[in-house]
Amino acid sequence: MRITVLAGGVGAARFLRGLKQAARDAEITVIGNTGDDITLFGLRVCPDLDTVMYTLGGGIDEEQGWGRAGETFSIRAELAAYGASPDWFTLGDRDFATHIRRSQLLAAGQPLSAVTEVLCQRWRPGVRLLPMSDEPVETHVVLADSGEQTVVHFQEWWVRMHAETPAAEIIASGAAEAVPAPGVLEAIADADVVLFPPSNPVVSIGTILAIPGIRAAVAAKTVVGVSPIIGGAPVRGMADACLTAIGVATSAAAVGAHYGSGLIDGWLVDDQDKAAADDPALAGIEVRALPLYMRDLAATTAIARAALDLAAELAPGRA
Amino acid sequence: MRITVLAGGVGAARFLRGLKQAARDAEITVIGNTGDDITLFGLRVCPDLDTVMYTLGGGIDEEQGWGRAGETFSIRAELAAYGASPDWFTLGDRDFATHIRRSQLLAAGQPLSAVTEVLCQRWRPGVRLLPMSDEPVETHVVLADSGEQTVVHFQEWWVRMHAETPAAEIIASGAAEAVPAPGVLEAIADADVVLFPPSNPVVSIGTILAIPGIRAAVAAKTVVGVSPIIGGAPVRGMADACLTAIGVATSAAAVGAHYGSGLIDGWLVDDQDKAAADDPALAGIEVRALPLYMRDLAATTAIARAALDLAAELAPGRA
Repeated sequence: MRITVLAGGVGAARFLRGLKQAARDAEITVIGNTGDDITLFGLRVCPDLDTVMYTLGGGIDEEQGWGRAGETFSIRAELAAYGASPDWFTLGDRDFATHIRRSQLLAAGQPLSAVTEVLCQRWRPGVRLLPMSDEPVETHVVLADSGEQTVVHFQEWWVRMHAETPAAEIIASGAAEAVPAPGVLEAIADADVVLFPPSNPVVSIGTILAIPGIRAAVAAKTVVGVSPIIGGAPVRGMADACLTAIGVATSAAAVGAHYGSGLIDGWLVDDQDKAAADDPALAGIEVRALPLYMRDLAATTAIARAALDLAAELAPGRA
Repeated sequence: MRITVLAGGVGAARFLRGLKQAARDAEITVIGNTGDDITLFGLRVCPDLDTVMYTLGGGIDEEQGWGRAGETFSIRAELAAYGASPDWFTLGDRDFATHIRRSQLLAAGQPLSAVTEVLCQRWRPGVRLLPMSDEPVETHVVLADSGEQTVVHFQEWWVRMHAETPAAEIIASGAAEAVPAPGVLEAIADADVVLFPPSNPVVSIGTILAIPGIRAAVAAKTVVGVSPIIGGAPVRGMADACLTAIGVATSAAAVGAHYGSGLIDGWLVDDQDKAAADDPALAGIEVRALPLYMRDLAATTAIARAALDLAAELAPGRA
């Protein structure tokens, strides 16, 4: 069985752990968001790819969900002593090594997809991890509150400003001109099922879908999504701030409707959002309610299994 | 009083500590060797500049004479886990921060001299530290013993091979086409005295002198050198292997004669090498014997003071 997953960071990584349990013999391809990549101190940082890689490879800081376990922060302190900025993006020493190695290989002319493969040779995440594109795409945020219009990198809005200043617009800069990385369209076309984990629908899955060719390829498949919104609030992060920027309500039903029946076939919502099943905005989408908090591996595995079961129901003989 | 010093790494850095004590009101300019610079993991490493900067700025590992005090080695282990090479050049986490910052500024288009100034704003070494050139010069070693002629970077010969394979030739690759960094020729021309600390005469001071214009500028000044050879052996490092490669004997007299009376005016040798004073090869060079081991700051200060005293004697009214 072939499963292809569009992935952001922490939520996707945790979902993938459950998926690996739920489908032990499946070939899983993960198409990772690179829209929140950022160049810091001259080094290329790919937070979502690394979160998936570290989580599935056993190197993640379990408590915070990102970064490396047993991390130290010498370099950060040293760079601050040199007056280097920014100081709001936390990178640990072990994590720095990943960015050093990645930047070295990129500078030597290797595309990000090949570099990611090299890094995964160490971590052996048990999935094939592909960046959505080898070309740099950076999510930028147009701030609503500023007197003059101000555009900041997504990470600055998200990490430094905690998304507290409303976004007037969120732009995947470079996405329209980018092409999917080698293997991405094939992995979607060859998949028995495409899954959307509970990632940010705007700046994670939305950015991946903005790469020309990906949305159409996904739409042609059996797609089941997992709502990142439970009871009107994001389970993690500040997805509400992103949804507001694109005029979508922070509810499981609204996010499902935002994807739409032209894109997704099945939609998993939490038990407390089961009314979504009767929401006319979700007509044409098979909605199932179940406990969606990924409290532990068992709970997460049950969610992944429910997604696969729904896919099998929607496309008998495939998934 | 203006003093300009041509400097390698550990020996020069220790000598400079004594010089700062011996000449508290002097303006000291240090012209640092960059011939053993190397690009590792995509980052530019300048071992000699950093050794001077860390030593005078209070950040050096006192025991080994290079690298940072209180160092950790997470990044090194991580890069090895990623299969990155080489593994024979030890870089600590704190030290990595320096190379990250330097590489970032170089990539942004700043010349090495400007980058060094930025780094020194943190360390405040109490001297003006200039790289010999803003252009990359790399010392390469032609190995004598190999069946086919093999050329390695100086650091590979020095650090990995411990200079055990004889060198047939030592080449300052790029030196002939390089120009002195801004301020270098002025610092020599404006100096009351130019000092050669007990640095490697071949791959440290020799490389600096190989940059077009520097040798002539130095030769026009009152120059006093400190022998790096005591009793027929280098005090530190493997200068004998370098001297052999250029056909110079490992003795205080031979090194003084190698510089020659056309370049240096005074030559400090250790008490055990006092016979050099009568060596005809040193005709035209004023030789003084004194204890030359830099055992502690007091001993080092005495050596620096002796160098300045000799310079004053050789050019009354200047030094």
